Amino acid sequence: MSTLVGALRDALSVPQVTINETVLELHSKDESYHQAVKPEVVVYPYNAQDISKMMKVAQTFNRPIYPFGLGTSLEGLVIPREDGISVDFSEMNNIIEIKEKDFLVTVQPGVTRTQLNHELKKYGLFFPVDPGADATMGGMAATNASGTTSVRYGTMRDQVRNLEVVLADGSIIQTGSNAAKSSSGYHLNGLFVGSEGTLGCFTSITLKVYGIPEHIVAGRAVFPTVHDAVAAVVSILQAGIPIARVELVDEASIQKVNEFSETTYPVKPTLFLEFHGNEAGLKHDVAFTKEIVSDHGCQAIDFEHNNAARNKLWDARHNLAYAFIHSNPGKKMMVTDVCVPISQLADAINYARQAVDQSILEGGIAGHVGDGNYHIILMFDPNHDADVKAATAINEAIVSQALAVGGTCTGEHGVGIGKQKYQQEEHGEALAVMQKIKQAIDPQNRLNPDKLVQVKE
Amino acid sequence: MSTLVGALRDALSVPQVTINETVLELHSKDESYHQAVKPEVVVYPYNAQDISKMMKVAQTFNRPIYPFGLGTSLEGLVIPREDGISVDFSEMNNIIEIKEKDFLVTVQPGVTRTQLNHELKKYGLFFPVDPGADATMGGMAATNASGTTSVRYGTMRDQVRNLEVVLADGSIIQTGSNAAKSSSGYHLNGLFVGSEGTLGCFTSITLKVYGIPEHIVAGRAVFPTVHDAVAAVVSILQAGIPIARVELVDEASIQKVNEFSETTYPVKPTLFLEFHGNEAGLKHDVAFTKEIVSDHGCQAIDFEHNNAARNKLWDARHNLAYAFIHSNPGKKMMVTDVCVPISQLADAINYARQAVDQSILEGGIAGHVGDGNYHIILMFDPNHDADVKAATAINEAIVSQALAVGGTCTGEHGVGIGKQKYQQEEHGEALAVMQKIKQAIDPQNRLNPDKLVQVKE
Ligand SMILES: Cc1cc2nc3c(=O)[nH]c(=O)nc-3n(C[C@H](O)[C@H](O)[C@H](O)COP(=O)(O)OP(=O)(O)OC[C@H]3O[C@@H](n4cnc5c(N)ncnc54)[C@H](O)[C@@H]3O)c2cc1C
Ligand SMILES: Cc1cc2nc3c(=O)[nH]c(=O)nc-3n(C[C@H](O)[C@H](O)[C@H](O)COP(=O)(O)OP(=O)(O)OC[C@H]3O[C@@H](n4cnc5c(N)ncnc54)[C@H](O)[C@@H]3O)c2cc1C
Repeated sequence: MSTLVGALRDALSVPQVTINETVLELHSKDESYHQAVKPEVVVYPYNAQDISKMMKVAQTFNRPIYPFGLGTSLEGLVIPREDGISVDFSEMNNIIEIKEKDFLVTVQPGVTRTQLNHELKKYGLFFPVDPGADATMGGMAATNASGTTSVRYGTMRDQVRNLEVVLADGSIIQTGSNAAKSSSGYHLNGLFVGSEGTLGCFTSITLKVYGIPEHIVAGRAVFPTVHDAVAAVVSILQAGIPIARVELVDEASIQKVNEFSETTYPVKPTLFLEFHGNEAGLKHDVAFTKEIVSDHGCQAIDFEHNNAARNKLWDARHNLAYAFIHSNPGKKMMVTDVCVPISQLADAINYARQAVDQSILEGGIAGHVGDGNYHIILMFDPNHDADVKAATAINEAIVSQALAVGGTCTGEHGVGIGKQKYQQEEHGEALAVMQKIKQAIDPQNRLNPDKLVQVKE
Repeated sequence: MSTLVGALRDALSVPQVTINETVLELHSKDESYHQAVKPEVVVYPYNAQDISKMMKVAQTFNRPIYPFGLGTSLEGLVIPREDGISVDFSEMNNIIEIKEKDFLVTVQPGVTRTQLNHELKKYGLFFPVDPGADATMGGMAATNASGTTSVRYGTMRDQVRNLEVVLADGSIIQTGSNAAKSSSGYHLNGLFVGSEGTLGCFTSITLKVYGIPEHIVAGRAVFPTVHDAVAAVVSILQAGIPIARVELVDEASIQKVNEFSETTYPVKPTLFLEFHGNEAGLKHDVAFTKEIVSDHGCQAIDFEHNNAARNKLWDARHNLAYAFIHSNPGKKMMVTDVCVPISQLADAINYARQAVDQSILEGGIAGHVGDGNYHIILMFDPNHDADVKAATAINEAIVSQALAVGGTCTGEHGVGIGKQKYQQEEHGEALAVMQKIKQAIDPQNRLNPDKLVQVKE
């Protein structure tokens, strides 16, 4: 009888199936602190049919499947259990079609966000969702990723019009259409986005894109305290200013940014802001925002007037996690990810700051505060018990706080392994409904088992 | 042994359970042409617990449940099969909480959109989704309703943050939270919105609301042809103008509007437009729009500068269907509802106009053209075979056309009875996934059976 690897090579082709140790290693982990576990084999599909064939081999050999984008996720979402097939989409990285008039693009799942934006720029278009790491559209869709622009443009789920998905039984479905809205059938788009590879493999993704705004203004507003900065954000939103980005970077984080990105930003709680629109409207929005932030004690607000300075600002923000990693060699990073109702954000961040200050760890707070989503970037020594304990305790404390005020345990990073233990508390009886859905669509529990929702086997 | 009615009265209370003929009659139909069928009994729950108890009685007596809002839907969504319990939410019509700072409101399902907006106005807030009929939040959530403002603010699905749902087994779940975004668990919000009462009864709904815009400008732009009007819409969207409403009303429809609403609008293909924003930005948007529409042959553009004239404009638009009904006594109305990619809209509407012109029926075309969604309002005599045949043929023709160009058979009215026959063609293998979901969540097929998705029993 043939082996798993042999059967996969027969079904696909030899170069598409590897057991090279370095490759297995690369597919054993994500960018989080979770324990690495190697898959048995890594497969590189070229198209949906390859995946369909692979599903049948997996069935014959009764092996699980672990979809893998770039492995930048932060809760162990791509980590295998102890056996099975890691499916790497890097050979499926073509932009299939740009439909300018419809503001739609169809891509293969391995296309990254920088690759996509590079291409869209030629058409005067852009794709807004921007997790700090470069990531694939497949991975971003599977985690419902979001980022600095979600306050204005929404999350991945808001962008996905259609997915081609290969299910565990090898069948291939479309979850939506090219229409801007629909009341036909159950909303499979919404269900499959954020499903963390547990319901199927995405093989093509149709996304909304946007015209590059006529005018863009970005700036930094410096505040005496984090509390003032957050209060200013709430006031900006209440005033109905259609802000495109509003990011909090606390004192500890600004310090790391300056060290890593060679900037000289004042070491104070800071909001990074951006406005999109027509020139006249923007002027008004910026003037109004200046008034609001100064009402909240803002000590200085600086606007970047050219592209280069603006890009530097956002690169600095996006490199924040790498700045922490860089200055903490040998340590591991834990990035917390709760999201709370905006009215609760100032208190939540205060609580988080205290939790860090009272611990033995250092940590910076930053976040997509316009959505009520904040992160603590915690650096800890994984071989030092007290460190691990402290990091875990902080995470648990802020998750409990977030759930108590009507928030969620993960705003954008997903459940994976790390947020499993909060699912019952967050979802209550709805968890049973999620389990039923998983069992109905993947009855053999073949797809990324034990991520997002655990089911009895 | 007690009867169904007796058991329901025991479980709830006598005045909550009725078999009054007039009431049964009222719950036998919606505002469409579909054949009326009376339920056995109508129940008026006061709260989720009542529904939970009712579910248990329904189980004992093995009867289906038909949730009922105001019965304004257009595809037979509320029509019983031949027996069972119609659940009327009119006694659950309280606004539970307005969370100003979070831009959220929690309502009971029987709250109507006019009732909600009346209350929100006191807080400087509004709720944008506006189907032509006044409708309940429960019914609107269950159909994924949308309307004139969806081009800017989105559909019901975009507004729903959380639903409290009573499932067929009587258990009560929450589908979301108060956080602005989440990557925790499967996206039940999205799945339950648009589920047409087939997965559970909504007992409380948390919705996004918006600040009333600083400035609002509305107007009418008159074009030589429908094709020119639609081309202008595409250009407005391509220019990135954040238009808040853009409605097409064709010649035949303008005529009816004038008769019914006592307006004197020029009898020409017309766009009804609205802009929301700050004064400076709006000026720019309006000027830019004027340029664009005149490039597309616009013969006259008139702006309404006060609230009264603006309200008159939108009332006239919202009363369009009633205008057709009023001038066709004894006839029935069929409102088609396809949605196509915006690039395909001009051709689709041309095709639709020809289909009507070549038939024996009269019909007006109107629609939420910024979303690619258009309706033909067809008046026909239900007792006249040729009429029925003609109406059905037009509907079938435009659905086929829409599906062929990547659209959907229903943009906002839902599947109900009328769009069942297109589900296989539209969804292909995905239909089987929808059936599995229905069976997993409602294994006895108790909830609004044979609507949206049919399953074997
Ligand atoms: C420094 C840093 C900053 C970050 N900032 C953000 C942020 O601001 N916002 C944010 O949302 N995230 C952020 N992240 C997390 C991460 O970038 C996202 O989770 C990203 O969406 C994952 O993309 P990926 O391509 O790396 O996917 P992977 O990590 O490889 O996979 C993620 C999940 O998607 C599944 N998957 C991948 N491809 C497919 C497919 N084709 N079909 C089905 N399932 C698939 C996997 O099984 C897994 O469950 C950050 C990460 C880092 C390291
Ligand atoms: C003149 C006219 C114009 C219209 N224009 C539009 C338009 O522009 N856009 C649009 O989207 N629609 C439009 N419609 C259709 C209609 O108004 C919508 O379908 C509306 O959303 C239904 O609301 P309702 O309260 O009347 O619900 P109903 O018609 O009573 O019920 C609709 C569906 O919701 C379910 N339901 C009701 N309450 C609940 C609950 N609490 N829990 C679970 N399920 C429930 C029912 O079972 C049914 O499947 C129009 C209708 C008319 C007559």
